[in-house]
Amino acid sequence: MASSVLTVGEYLIERLYSHGVHHIFGVPGDYVLGFFKQLCDSPIKVINTCDEQGAGFAADAYARVRGLGAVCVTYCVGGLKVANTTAQAYAEKSPVVVISGAPGTNERHKNPLLHHKVREFDTQLKVFEQLTVAATVLDDPQTAFCEIDRVFEAALRYRRPVYIELPRNVARATGSACHLRELPQETSDPATLGEAVKEAVARINASRQPVILAGEELHRFALQPLLAQLIEKTNIPVASTILGKSVFPESHPRYLGVYEGAMGREDVRDYVEASDCLVLLGALMTDMNLGIYTANLDPRRSIYCATEKLTIGYHSYEDVRLQDFAAGLLAGEIERRVDGPTPHPLPLAQFQPVQDRPMTVLRLFQQLNAFLDDETIVVADPGDALFAGADLFIPGKTRFLAPAYYASLGFAVPAALGAQMADARLRPLVLVGDGAFQMSGLELSTIARFGLDPIVVLLNNRGYGTERPMQDGSFNDVLNWNYSRLPELLGTGRGFEVSTEDQLAAALHEARRHRGSFSLIDVHLEPGDLSPALRRMTDSMGQRVRPAAV
Amino acid sequence: MASSVLTVGEYLIERLYSHGVHHIFGVPGDYVLGFFKQLCDSPIKVINTCDEQGAGFAADAYARVRGLGAVCVTYCVGGLKVANTTAQAYAEKSPVVVISGAPGTNERHKNPLLHHKVREFDTQLKVFEQLTVAATVLDDPQTAFCEIDRVFEAALRYRRPVYIELPRNVARATGSACHLRELPQETSDPATLGEAVKEAVARINASRQPVILAGEELHRFALQPLLAQLIEKTNIPVASTILGKSVFPESHPRYLGVYEGAMGREDVRDYVEASDCLVLLGALMTDMNLGIYTANLDPRRSIYCATEKLTIGYHSYEDVRLQDFAAGLLAGEIERRVDGPTPHPLPLAQFQPVQDRPMTVLRLFQQLNAFLDDETIVVADPGDALFAGADLFIPGKTRFLAPAYYASLGFAVPAALGAQMADARLRPLVLVGDGAFQMSGLELSTIARFGLDPIVVLLNNRGYGTERPMQDGSFNDVLNWNYSRLPELLGTGRGFEVSTEDQLAAALHEARRHRGSFSLIDVHLEPGDLSPALRRMTDSMGQRVRPAAV
Repeated sequence: MASSVLTVGEYLIERLYSHGVHHIFGVPGDYVLGFFKQLCDSPIKVINTCDEQGAGFAADAYARVRGLGAVCVTYCVGGLKVANTTAQAYAEKSPVVVISGAPGTNERHKNPLLHHKVREFDTQLKVFEQLTVAATVLDDPQTAFCEIDRVFEAALRYRRPVYIELPRNVARATGSACHLRELPQETSDPATLGEAVKEAVARINASRQPVILAGEELHRFALQPLLAQLIEKTNIPVASTILGKSVFPESHPRYLGVYEGAMGREDVRDYVEASDCLVLLGALMTDMNLGIYTANLDPRRSIYCATEKLTIGYHSYEDVRLQDFAAGLLAGEIERRVDGPTPHPLPLAQFQPVQDRPMTVLRLFQQLNAFLDDETIVVADPGDALFAGADLFIPGKTRFLAPAYYASLGFAVPAALGAQMADARLRPLVLVGDGAFQMSGLELSTIARFGLDPIVVLLNNRGYGTERPMQDGSFNDVLNWNYSRLPELLGTGRGFEVSTEDQLAAALHEARRHRGSFSLIDVHLEPGDLSPALRRMTDSMGQRVRPAAV
Repeated sequence: MASSVLTVGEYLIERLYSHGVHHIFGVPGDYVLGFFKQLCDSPIKVINTCDEQGAGFAADAYARVRGLGAVCVTYCVGGLKVANTTAQAYAEKSPVVVISGAPGTNERHKNPLLHHKVREFDTQLKVFEQLTVAATVLDDPQTAFCEIDRVFEAALRYRRPVYIELPRNVARATGSACHLRELPQETSDPATLGEAVKEAVARINASRQPVILAGEELHRFALQPLLAQLIEKTNIPVASTILGKSVFPESHPRYLGVYEGAMGREDVRDYVEASDCLVLLGALMTDMNLGIYTANLDPRRSIYCATEKLTIGYHSYEDVRLQDFAAGLLAGEIERRVDGPTPHPLPLAQFQPVQDRPMTVLRLFQQLNAFLDDETIVVADPGDALFAGADLFIPGKTRFLAPAYYASLGFAVPAALGAQMADARLRPLVLVGDGAFQMSGLELSTIARFGLDPIVVLLNNRGYGTERPMQDGSFNDVLNWNYSRLPELLGTGRGFEVSTEDQLAAALHEARRHRGSFSLIDVHLEPGDLSPALRRMTDSMGQRVRPAAV
């Protein structure tokens, strides 16, 4: 095996590359410079971002599109800047390999005060143990290959981030081939699985109006083809959660729309909640997925299967994997349903912009809907970008990226970097508020440097529009930048400032034709103009901001 | 006591304000909106930044100038973004109160998947336990006031950050007056202290050339007046570490300069290392302070006293506080030294800019030296901004702010926000590289919004100049922004682009007169042009980047 003569750094690179990581995002620093050099000498392309936060979000998006992503930073001053992005990857099941350089094992004798050190040498490790499913310090070249294999397996099994700390002297040390220490194979208990599938099939067949609610885990665990087969076979209608949006092709005749309680479209809500057998597959029951607890789902009539739980009505089953249960449903004798009247997403209509008509959130999203095409991937930041975006009609699979549970602002622009690097055929349409843009939007610099060309639609309502209806104050204001002049700062890109529908139409037309650098469209909206979905959400959340005292 | 009828949020605000925290930095979010409202109704001014990172660095700088600072963010998506800035405050002893909103105690029943949650409800607490000296979750109004007092006392005793998590329903709950549970008083053992002072005084008096090396702890623990008295009484020459720079007035006739091993000025190095009795007071022995281990200090001839350690020659003393030892030295019978020839900082000379002469790092800092005045506070980012900045002549006390140990890039611009908020009489002169500026420089937006007017000198050498001599590659490149056009993006401020000495002179002159918004001077430097100090440092560090394999 060739790996017996590899250095630890080279082995790590080989593992990354063979798992499809062809780009790595990060910022160099002296504790990781040697490994950056090794990366540059490898087939993996290094994408250095403006700030580590941008690298972390880009790696998350890359992982969502390709199945694995990686971020590479220096010790503490780099690593702790991606604590938040790693937390998001953990919460939303995105397998990101966090690689941090570190002081050499030969520099740690007598615990000296080396620069970038916080408290003890293992402080950063302890932080990342909270934020990952597996963490290791490669302090011994003899065991390093095994450790790398172990954390990679955890990342792929749980689809969550892992942490690898690489002391700088170990990166160039020769490692030893790993004895294949594999994690015990995960299996379902066959008898339990059989019983669960039997009960589920019986309930589905006995029901009048079964509905499948598809969640993000079907994407993370590569079960989208299985879902498609299940629908082809059974013809059962499908809704998705907001975190799972685009897990199923929205152009499919049996697709209903996004279900998110009172936040979502009323017809979808009514249809899903009227179901007498709701099958939730791979959907995390988060407050966001449940429309901030406005969902009205009856557990007695639900089948809930996710990676960590299976319940059918009031029966809980242990030791059944999502993959096996879904395969069991597909193999089971579920009766085929006949076509019937169901809700559908709004069709892709032509949009007729009205001359001089001021932009509204509602019409903006209708206009954007008509702009989407097969190469579009929509990347949305939390806020109205996400909530109004939920009703966009996404033709392709996995073409809607958003942190719809952890909801960290500042995701979308760097995520567009990650998504387009992950698949050069995609063209990101970035939906981002002005508040979020001010956090990380300057990663357009990195996007420009590497010749990518997302179209950024900036929903400019002059501050934190999601928060104003809950509790307003000057703390929700931000400076109103001349966003469209960003190309003058960066020396590249196209900027547009639009206030009316016809201006937006012209800008979108230009942006589509402008390839090789970003386009930024500053869309002026009235501060009080919220989408209906966001209005319902902030009403519900506002009550929690102003609760009765304990 | 009035606090018996206060809510928990109000009590926290009262404690902050009474400790001099009149400004708080942060970004709102729904779990902390109620507390933001309470802050707005209080005398504390809320400064919302573009990104939480900026708030964290600003609070750190505020704490360094005023003795305590505070940052206020939402749960996880905000809190974890300040993990790195809090780590820096920990490493460099800056007392920052980190306040994070959180889900209400009444929302945590049955462990639901609330937005912004990573893994468990205490995940963020566990992270901050690694990065602070005291951490608390105010989950009970009955004990909240006591807990607030406890963590405040820890922040002030250890001059390090603390963490307060405020579940949103508790912020408005009425608390109970605290029974005064104080930490046991810290005292020195009188007999040990007496013996240690006696030995130290005897060694100092027996020495031919005593030198005091003053470190940052003298600033953090408010011992600068004591140091000044000690020098007035004994006339012993004083050098400072780089982290302690400006702890002693540099215009004082007995001030030598910054000592940092081979990285520093040669005459200072020779004088300090020739001392037969070096008294290190409040100086952390970090690699940076020791010039990346190029310092040549003989422990046999040293007296080392810091908050966590006291050694005299080979004698270690336990239970002696820095404060008491320093006071002991002042009270002891140390003989007064006569004036003699010592190194001095370069005097504040007039600088004659040469027409059309391209800027060099060396001449840039000579020119900046002549520009400093009594209201200047120099705020330097790591890199040549810091290393060349070490030899600037700082007239006032505590007028040089830099993360000279933890060395997190992106500190300087947001730190200028914190410093000028902390003391409106100060005018920050920000020294920042282009790489660091791309991380957090857009906090100039916040600076502009609140009418502050730092002068930002951007050392533009097109990339990570500190790293190129160690290991170069395209990962050290960044896009070359048209930095001077930033005012067009932000709608305010002044921008200058300079390549020659006379252009810089004109820009500095204009910038000095431009009040009420920032000035940004983009100084074009040759990529290979390093200050002598940085050259020596990167030579030393480069050997560690390319070590022999293990």
